[in-house]
Amino acid sequence: MRISELAATTDVPVATLKYYLREGVLPSGQARTRTSADYGQEHVERVRLVRALTGVGGLSLATTRRVLEATEAPRTSRADVMGAAQRALLGEEYVSDPGEGGALRPTNRARAWLAEQGWQVHPADPAIDELDTAWAACEAADLGVDEERMAAYAQAVLRVAAVDLASVPADPQGAVRQVVIGTVLLDRVLLLLRRLAQQHLAVSEGG
Amino acid sequence: MRISELAATTDVPVATLKYYLREGVLPSGQARTRTSADYGQEHVERVRLVRALTGVGGLSLATTRRVLEATEAPRTSRADVMGAAQRALLGEEYVSDPGEGGALRPTNRARAWLAEQGWQVHPADPAIDELDTAWAACEAADLGVDEERMAAYAQAVLRVAAVDLASVPADPQGAVRQVVIGTVLLDRVLLLLRRLAQQHLAVSEGG
Repeated sequence: MRISELAATTDVPVATLKYYLREGVLPSGQARTRTSADYGQEHVERVRLVRALTGVGGLSLATTRRVLEATEAPRTSRADVMGAAQRALLGEEYVSDPGEGGALRPTNRARAWLAEQGWQVHPADPAIDELDTAWAACEAADLGVDEERMAAYAQAVLRVAAVDLASVPADPQGAVRQVVIGTVLLDRVLLLLRRLAQQHLAVSEGG
Repeated sequence: MRISELAATTDVPVATLKYYLREGVLPSGQARTRTSADYGQEHVERVRLVRALTGVGGLSLATTRRVLEATEAPRTSRADVMGAAQRALLGEEYVSDPGEGGALRPTNRARAWLAEQGWQVHPADPAIDELDTAWAACEAADLGVDEERMAAYAQAVLRVAAVDLASVPADPQGAVRQVVIGTVLLDRVLLLLRRLAQQHLAVSEGG
């Protein structure tokens, strides 16, 4: 199909599609003439995926490109897949800015706590310092998030991750796609479920 | 203390503090002369909270103001507190843009599924349509998130929400603060824990 048909099928304006092509999140079509190209079903699916990642997923186009690249590189193990997904996601979009305030600089609290939980994570994983900063922000806001409460969250989140992993397909390429895209889109689902679960529990306890 | 001392104490520039005053996220100090005002410990704490919400929490200043207003209005019940927190958070910052694509318009799937789970949530809660849109995005990306997998997530997230609620103080004002600010800052903690838990499970299963 021509780019105008791709626009009609996906309900995305031609100008936006051209922007996606320039930004490298949409592969070029097959050249027909010097000025027009042919697009197929894989382009329709890619456009829908980009819309989902930038819309519901809330990613910038730059992070979207990194995430899509991560799904295309060959991987051999599930641990490798997880690492690639995390590196792609912990880019500029997901690395929070703790501000100029000195109170939120990383300590080693998260690292020590993770070791105590017996979690096997890469010691240089940027998520560890991120967790430390986020935990420090909770403390600065006086939310009373101590090691015990974190451990209770960790047990609940392990169940979430177990559901995540149970759905990962056996072939490495499918696995990457599932993990990277599933992580972004399901973050939003889980955030909303948390809001609704809080409400349900508050109401059913007689609030 | 003068505004210059508030800046030194919080490590936030005077220009930023003046911006916070103009945007209504920092209450005025007590007037001393026509051009200077006096700030106290409550201002120090408020500045740190604003930094945490805009930094780790990733909120815009407009959403931060709404969230802070929600913590200040008087509330009587925990269900009321939850509702206020959700309305403040599901503002422009948290309502995702599904894009122009027609594929992601809300259906009634999330609503029907929630009823099946027996969750007591307000039928007009914007989080329900949001969940529907996010679920549709997962389906559009072919992630295989069916009712059964959602139910497994729901069970895990109920445990998260139970930890949230166990930490809510008895006095309504403290409860609002804990819920609203805890929801924002702990979203980030839980997102990072999910990444680390995925990695831990993938590695400990031998990848």
